[in-house]
Amino acid sequence: MADGNKGVGRQLRSLVTAGGELELSLAEVPIPEPAADEILVRVEATPINPSDLGLLVGPADLTTAKVTGAGDDAVLTAKIPPQLMRMLAGRVDQSLPVGNEGGGVVVDAGADAKGLIGKTVGILGGAMYAQYRVVKAADALVVHDDATPRDAASCFVNPLTALGMVATMRMEGHIALVHTAAASNLGQMLVKICVKDGVELVNIVRSPAQAALLKGIGAKHVVDSSAPGFMDDLIAALSATGATIAFDAIGGGKLAGQILTGMEVAAVQRGGGAFSRYGSTTYKQVYIYGGLDTGPTELNRAFGMSWGLGGWLLTPFIAKIGPAEAGKLRQRVADELKTTFASHYTAEISLAEALQPATLAAINKKSTGEKYLINPSKA
Amino acid sequence: MADGNKGVGRQLRSLVTAGGELELSLAEVPIPEPAADEILVRVEATPINPSDLGLLVGPADLTTAKVTGAGDDAVLTAKIPPQLMRMLAGRVDQSLPVGNEGGGVVVDAGADAKGLIGKTVGILGGAMYAQYRVVKAADALVVHDDATPRDAASCFVNPLTALGMVATMRMEGHIALVHTAAASNLGQMLVKICVKDGVELVNIVRSPAQAALLKGIGAKHVVDSSAPGFMDDLIAALSATGATIAFDAIGGGKLAGQILTGMEVAAVQRGGGAFSRYGSTTYKQVYIYGGLDTGPTELNRAFGMSWGLGGWLLTPFIAKIGPAEAGKLRQRVADELKTTFASHYTAEISLAEALQPATLAAINKKSTGEKYLINPSKA
Repeated sequence: MADGNKGVGRQLRSLVTAGGELELSLAEVPIPEPAADEILVRVEATPINPSDLGLLVGPADLTTAKVTGAGDDAVLTAKIPPQLMRMLAGRVDQSLPVGNEGGGVVVDAGADAKGLIGKTVGILGGAMYAQYRVVKAADALVVHDDATPRDAASCFVNPLTALGMVATMRMEGHIALVHTAAASNLGQMLVKICVKDGVELVNIVRSPAQAALLKGIGAKHVVDSSAPGFMDDLIAALSATGATIAFDAIGGGKLAGQILTGMEVAAVQRGGGAFSRYGSTTYKQVYIYGGLDTGPTELNRAFGMSWGLGGWLLTPFIAKIGPAEAGKLRQRVADELKTTFASHYTAEISLAEALQPATLAAINKKSTGEKYLINPSKA
Repeated sequence: MADGNKGVGRQLRSLVTAGGELELSLAEVPIPEPAADEILVRVEATPINPSDLGLLVGPADLTTAKVTGAGDDAVLTAKIPPQLMRMLAGRVDQSLPVGNEGGGVVVDAGADAKGLIGKTVGILGGAMYAQYRVVKAADALVVHDDATPRDAASCFVNPLTALGMVATMRMEGHIALVHTAAASNLGQMLVKICVKDGVELVNIVRSPAQAALLKGIGAKHVVDSSAPGFMDDLIAALSATGATIAFDAIGGGKLAGQILTGMEVAAVQRGGGAFSRYGSTTYKQVYIYGGLDTGPTELNRAFGMSWGLGGWLLTPFIAKIGPAEAGKLRQRVADELKTTFASHYTAEISLAEALQPATLAAINKKSTGEKYLINPSKA
């Protein structure tokens, strides 16, 4: 190995035992040889996205977390409420690697990909919370020369999700969109995309500070759900933009239903016309793509019969648009990596630090705008 | 007029005043002359479907109902909770006719439709809670000679909705379906259709008596939500049938979410395969087509990310399949009117009786299997 590694690397593993415990540990795994069309990447920056936490922590109760051992040999255990074990049947007693995406440097390559050695890349595909990762060369996003692994760390999930929202809006025939938890890293990217592309966006945030942040980067419609006039403000923004599709990162509580209600009132205001006993014929869609609030979703259904609520995930979206369209989105990410798609991190931690209960609990809070970056090369 | 009518007929009207009151009354309206392609129908039987109640009663509080006047001059008034008035903006101060469908006898016809005079027909299109109704001849369903107006009264909404559910199941790529409030008139039709067509159907009912009723007409999978083992029974039926689409008449409460959860567990049981942090990739759909429980819909979202919940209505479904397909469905209804599509009624009432608070309150309870029939020809 170029960097003198003895042929093994650390990899974070998540295990759910049949006894109802979560176990997080660092496994020592052989560094694989890249095949002809593969590259070996030394991972230097890999974010903990909300979408990683389902596999990493799942429904474990972190207030019960305990650590045995220290450093790279630490093992964190936490209890899983028994009634939630049924949904985990598919993963019991399998030690699973974690981490959707990351950035790093190509340290070795197969015969067909030698030209990539030394390049900084962003990669996607799981098992990124590790010191080394082999992937197909074609799947890596080679970033521009002035970008670091840290810049490349989050170049898939958030950027493609934000671009996917705008593309989904267009594909499904809507003219403007709504986003919740809009002050997140992803939300800031979405604001910049919409400003650049001339798409009307209604941003829903949860504090005046978050509203100010988004206004500062050019957001036009920002509605604060903590303000007393929230519903009226929301309806005014929906009526002004004609947004009839929303992407909701929160999931739990009344927000998705409030958005549908607001869209219905705005549709009546915009459309006028005769009253129908079934509400307006304007189709209104909310996609839940995250679960910042894991509590139940509550819908009062005061929004007629022409509506849909559903899950939205990046992977099926990418499959639906096909490789040519996906390639265009990836190129845009590379070209605007340090502007539109810049990410901000709360702290950079080592693999071992991710297993400390206090750190893990802070990560699992999923506070908007807070994001942790693992540097597996950090001791 | 053939029957000696003086040229006016009674028509039930629903009015929401800007002051926040519902007013139901019987208006005297001129009997219209049919145009060349139209028929004049003397309405003799018109059901009060749950789908009529939105326009008829809306969100009015019937515990506040009062009547002034008597007989055909009675006016019922009831208060509407102020916070619900916003959704009614489109209908304020308009006196609206009510009644989706009905059966009657053709008493006059335009030049191109003279052949229909004397025929019994089922008709759809609103304003059926009236003694006379003019419609396009082409829109009427001429029933077989042995069928009465009472047989024809409910030949559109329930039959086409039940057929539409099976058609939607096929169009959206599912192999079996779930129905709630399954002991209703509509539910019984659906059981008969599925038995006849060899489609697997999971019936969810709310009492042992309803379960027995459905078993009696050939239902194979009946699950009682009032039983302690409901979730296990539901999962077993979903696993046995592979049903991944449901039509829910209830709307409020946890049932829609329980169905999605059950489908997810069944998908994992049926599919096996690797665990995904996002749940199974099996797409699960629940359509809410009624609101027997007007309370909030509560989803715990323990069913992965591949799911949808939405409204389902007959009219857009019929528009989507087009006139040729719709014509086939209508013909099937006419052919099986007294078997598959037979309806049962709790009571037959006059137009004036529909304005009595006790009667209206009983109707508005929407008890499964209870349905009222208005006979506008009844004094």
